[in-house]
Amino acid sequence: MELTAGHVWLMVAAALVLLMTPGLAFFYGGMTRAKAALNMMMMSFISIGIVSVVWVLWGYSMTGGDGFLQIVGNPFASFGLEGVNTADSPDGLILVGYGATFAIITVALISGAIADRAKFGAWSVFVPVWVTLVYCPLAYMVWGGGLFGEEGAIGQALGPAIDFAGGTVVHINAGVAALILVLIIGNRKGFGKDPNHRPHNIPFVMLGAAILWFGWFGFNGGLASSAEQGGLIWVNTLAAPAAAMLGWLVTERIRDGHPTSLGAASGVVAGLVAITPACANVSPVGALGLGVVAGVASALAVGLKFRWGFDDSLDVVGVHLVSGIIGTVALGFIALPTDGVGGGLFYGGGMAQMWAQLAAAGIAIAYSAILTLIIALAIHKTMGFRVSQEQETVGVDLSLHAETAYEFGVGGHGGSFQPLHDMITGKGQQDSAAQPAKAAQQNESATGKESVGA
Amino acid sequence: MELTAGHVWLMVAAALVLLMTPGLAFFYGGMTRAKAALNMMMMSFISIGIVSVVWVLWGYSMTGGDGFLQIVGNPFASFGLEGVNTADSPDGLILVGYGATFAIITVALISGAIADRAKFGAWSVFVPVWVTLVYCPLAYMVWGGGLFGEEGAIGQALGPAIDFAGGTVVHINAGVAALILVLIIGNRKGFGKDPNHRPHNIPFVMLGAAILWFGWFGFNGGLASSAEQGGLIWVNTLAAPAAAMLGWLVTERIRDGHPTSLGAASGVVAGLVAITPACANVSPVGALGLGVVAGVASALAVGLKFRWGFDDSLDVVGVHLVSGIIGTVALGFIALPTDGVGGGLFYGGGMAQMWAQLAAAGIAIAYSAILTLIIALAIHKTMGFRVSQEQETVGVDLSLHAETAYEFGVGGHGGSFQPLHDMITGKGQQDSAAQPAKAAQQNESATGKESVGA
Amino acid sequence: MELTAGHVWLMVAAALVLLMTPGLAFFYGGMTRAKAALNMMMMSFISIGIVSVVWVLWGYSMTGGDGFLQIVGNPFASFGLEGVNTADSPDGLILVGYGATFAIITVALISGAIADRAKFGAWSVFVPVWVTLVYCPLAYMVWGGGLFGEEGAIGQALGPAIDFAGGTVVHINAGVAALILVLIIGNRKGFGKDPNHRPHNIPFVMLGAAILWFGWFGFNGGLASSAEQGGLIWVNTLAAPAAAMLGWLVTERIRDGHPTSLGAASGVVAGLVAITPACANVSPVGALGLGVVAGVASALAVGLKFRWGFDDSLDVVGVHLVSGIIGTVALGFIALPTDGVGGGLFYGGGMAQMWAQLAAAGIAIAYSAILTLIIALAIHKTMGFRVSQEQETVGVDLSLHAETAYEFGVGGHGGSFQPLHDMITGKGQQDSAAQPAKAAQQNESATGKESVGA
Repeated sequence: MELTAGHVWLMVAAALVLLMTPGLAFFYGGMTRAKAALNMMMMSFISIGIVSVVWVLWGYSMTGGDGFLQIVGNPFASFGLEGVNTADSPDGLILVGYGATFAIITVALISGAIADRAKFGAWSVFVPVWVTLVYCPLAYMVWGGGLFGEEGAIGQALGPAIDFAGGTVVHINAGVAALILVLIIGNRKGFGKDPNHRPHNIPFVMLGAAILWFGWFGFNGGLASSAEQGGLIWVNTLAAPAAAMLGWLVTERIRDGHPTSLGAASGVVAGLVAITPACANVSPVGALGLGVVAGVASALAVGLKFRWGFDDSLDVVGVHLVSGIIGTVALGFIALPTDGVGGGLFYGGGMAQMWAQLAAAGIAIAYSAILTLIIALAIHKTMGFRVSQEQETVGVDLSLHAETAYEFGVGGHGGSFQPLHDMITGKGQQDSAAQPAKAAQQNESATGKESVGA
Repeated sequence: MELTAGHVWLMVAAALVLLMTPGLAFFYGGMTRAKAALNMMMMSFISIGIVSVVWVLWGYSMTGGDGFLQIVGNPFASFGLEGVNTADSPDGLILVGYGATFAIITVALISGAIADRAKFGAWSVFVPVWVTLVYCPLAYMVWGGGLFGEEGAIGQALGPAIDFAGGTVVHINAGVAALILVLIIGNRKGFGKDPNHRPHNIPFVMLGAAILWFGWFGFNGGLASSAEQGGLIWVNTLAAPAAAMLGWLVTERIRDGHPTSLGAASGVVAGLVAITPACANVSPVGALGLGVVAGVASALAVGLKFRWGFDDSLDVVGVHLVSGIIGTVALGFIALPTDGVGGGLFYGGGMAQMWAQLAAAGIAIAYSAILTLIIALAIHKTMGFRVSQEQETVGVDLSLHAETAYEFGVGGHGGSFQPLHDMITGKGQQDSAAQPAKAAQQNESATGKESVGA
Repeated sequence: MELTAGHVWLMVAAALVLLMTPGLAFFYGGMTRAKAALNMMMMSFISIGIVSVVWVLWGYSMTGGDGFLQIVGNPFASFGLEGVNTADSPDGLILVGYGATFAIITVALISGAIADRAKFGAWSVFVPVWVTLVYCPLAYMVWGGGLFGEEGAIGQALGPAIDFAGGTVVHINAGVAALILVLIIGNRKGFGKDPNHRPHNIPFVMLGAAILWFGWFGFNGGLASSAEQGGLIWVNTLAAPAAAMLGWLVTERIRDGHPTSLGAASGVVAGLVAITPACANVSPVGALGLGVVAGVASALAVGLKFRWGFDDSLDVVGVHLVSGIIGTVALGFIALPTDGVGGGLFYGGGMAQMWAQLAAAGIAIAYSAILTLIIALAIHKTMGFRVSQEQETVGVDLSLHAETAYEFGVGGHGGSFQPLHDMITGKGQQDSAAQPAKAAQQNESATGKESVGA
């Protein structure tokens, strides 16, 4: 079948969503200390590697078709994607690709909560097991014809829940799993006390937020079924995070006196999370309102970890769980009626939609919490999920990957520590104020000699 | 209505153009000193936040429909985007989204001129007021059926000006506003003398230029009405910045002896600016020629700020105003005839197109200058547009946002200042040449103890 | 002609592929030492500038139409793209744009092999000559109706070789040229001995790999002729690099004890290279297998340069030549039959496809090697391809471009070397452990005085 506009949009959307996970790697990687940045990024990258393989082999197969108890599909039905492209579904493999990118980012989202202290091997086991046992079943229940679908037991009892792009399957799910992992793995050394626990590269955080926003147009919009719906999703995916950014910054301004870059980036993500389930079912003004609420709420929520003493290091719970619930439940209030029927409380639709939304959120929370607990405990009790104290102090980049993220300080007269004008005039060498430059230079001379002598 | 190829292209284009503003944040952010990088980036990010809200509420409504004196549309006609998606315009909201991204980046462009010294609060007031009073009316006049349109007073008198993607509305407009702001706010401390006024992270500048170029295919091409036009725009959007990069680098090579990375990145942007109004109306070889002229001219223009003593810090005037005028006026020479009619001087079209182009450029300059002057003065005289001397010395990142962009130096043995081989061999600790590494290590020990003791 | 889905996909794909070259700039730029990062990035950027101009003027014209001896097209047939958009080919210019991006990245790929030591002027001569004499003819032979095409002499004799997206024209070609350049230009000072020869910014390497992967969906998929083929290409372009990443990391884990970030990024690229020729002709499980083989093989291959003593600085040969050959030859084993006919050995297609693949790989190697040798020697013997020892020691950024990539160390109290808490409490000034911060601060005071006095 010839490429249609829908196929092209979906292929582009899939590429956009895939890019979101490296975006997340920068969003998270910039927030860690320099000595743990690579490991943080690697937790995202390895998620792409592992989940893609899982998805091709059995993951995709588990998210559709005839399932088991309306909970999960058959992993062997399309094992290895055999027979997915048929005359009936010429876009079969495009949908496979699009679906893969959702599974990838969902598990990657979790990693932010356990920055700086997780064994890379343990994470590499957690990823495929969690995707198989937690992500795929939830995706089946909500999108694949399972429990919450039109013909599912709960969908029939309460009416289908609205979760257009993944409020429950992606954000609530990842947020809950993150919370469970923190409780099992424990806090970082010095959590809440060590002033060095702060972002080492905020421009990277902003780069990550920008890439996430860019990709989110594919995440929310990929399955738009009409021009009208596509436009609505596009505008809502602009409006909600914009309003959430402002909500977060105003909250900071009032509470702390300063609007921060970190807050702007986090606000954007909170707004994106909140609009995810709602993107096709609220008005642009509704999206603005939802964004403000999500931005303020998540800004307040991320402060609680210090009060409650759990080290959700990069605010996965505060952003994804909190704003994921807000977006999912908000539909009970502000869902637009479909062809004049239904809709949220504010549109005269009564409580019907609200119950469906609450049920979906609640079951997602419960399912994710229980399964994640079992998986994480099994890993923690056998191979151990946490690095040694020594490794944590040295930094996981060096201890787990034998690398450091940056090497600015040595390697030549062009090293970045020395002001260019000093370098040209030679002033740096006599200037006692330029200690670091001087030291770097001496260092270079030493290594330079080695090289020449070698 | 089902998604058509045009809808998909426009949704993709809108996402591309939205990404340009974070791209701009890196382009500008990399050019500032390290102590002002976050603030620079925040001026772009907050533009996305504020303008998106303005656009949904009243901005979009002001750029079309029945207007006031052919100057501006009615802000209440589609307030909150009520009724924008109709059976007649199924792509209504897609166009809203696409339009929003243009308004966003136009105001963000201005910020580069006032790096390091603007109050963030004042900027946050300037953005919505300027978009409402300057951007929206100009967009209405040129694209929305106003003065310069086919049925507008000037369009009728001189023939419609060609500005396919925003030479006047975006680049001349932003360039003029930037110049006005510099004149009101004043120069940075040490402007033209302090050798530290140089880019702190040139790879970020190049990243920004790359993202801008990538997004510009959506900026120029989004409204292509045919395959032929789409292809022409695409190739021109490649050719002009490529040639401008070479033009800028050759100019540097001759003038300064070295072609720089900063020059390559700036040349790309100058070429993109110049081709913006002309992208659908010149041949690829015309685009090459236009690019060379823009690259050389902007390379020469950015030097003038030191001679004339106005601190257009990141060359907004030299690049956007100068190349914006070049691209707009060049159409008087090299515009292709349409179906054999009209065209620029070189195609035998006479001076007709030239007058229309000059009028559009002139009125855009005058309108933007006057309105921006009023707005900026009003802000400057009431709340003040400039930070205190103390805040500027400390750096606006720390003083306005309580953040610093980077924290490489502390946080562990994995800190980036120590050569890896020293770290492994322990040599760094005895080596008197490795002062910085040593200090960082001692620092870590100290904080390490704190953490353990805590 | 109205925009079709195919046009839109191709315009998007072309933008994606263009973005790959700046992605490559970061992939390579992050791997060099800090003192050569800008020059490395500039080698990619200038490739965009020069090749775009060449392509518009004569390059595109050489890759199609009636040719000379089935080896190369006529550069004057569509000089300046005159007459490319016709009623018969409304997508003519879209294809021009798409083709340009392939030529650009192919030559840019080569630059990684000669990091830190090539004259920028020599590179600026090499680029247009090599694209004209090596890239364009190979593209003509494989894709433009030449030797390997259905009507070409070799295509007729052996059956047409499969190279959907550029295993021979792009990767083998660039890998061979890289090897030749290294042999002519020689190794870096201290190659294999100086421990400072390691990546200065690994997050940039990962950013580059992510951008490359993102863009590669356009690279492999742009010319998909159906939804089924588009989906297959998309999934294969996900599966192969994912598997290759895992293959590379497992190899590192076994050989060195640590899976590295650099390995993950390199593995992704190796997998992308291998799937390039095969993306439309292998099954997703085939792509997984191919990816594993490429990841392991390239991980092993990059170690050989130290044993064999040739300084392929950023592993262009080990990744692009090795995985390019693997992908091209693998089709002899795992090519899917077309409508039940042909296919690789594993599908019962016999050796026919294998011979065609081997011939294509062999001739690409021979052609690229001989022509590149001639071009590079001519440049090296006349203007010289290598910088002076002095320039190499100082660093090519400073010596060739009069720039350094970063300037973190000076410029204010907000400088990045001082812990934020020290800065606020003033503790840093008394704390002997905070030498670098102290020095930076004193330095600032000095320059601060200058500024005030000025």
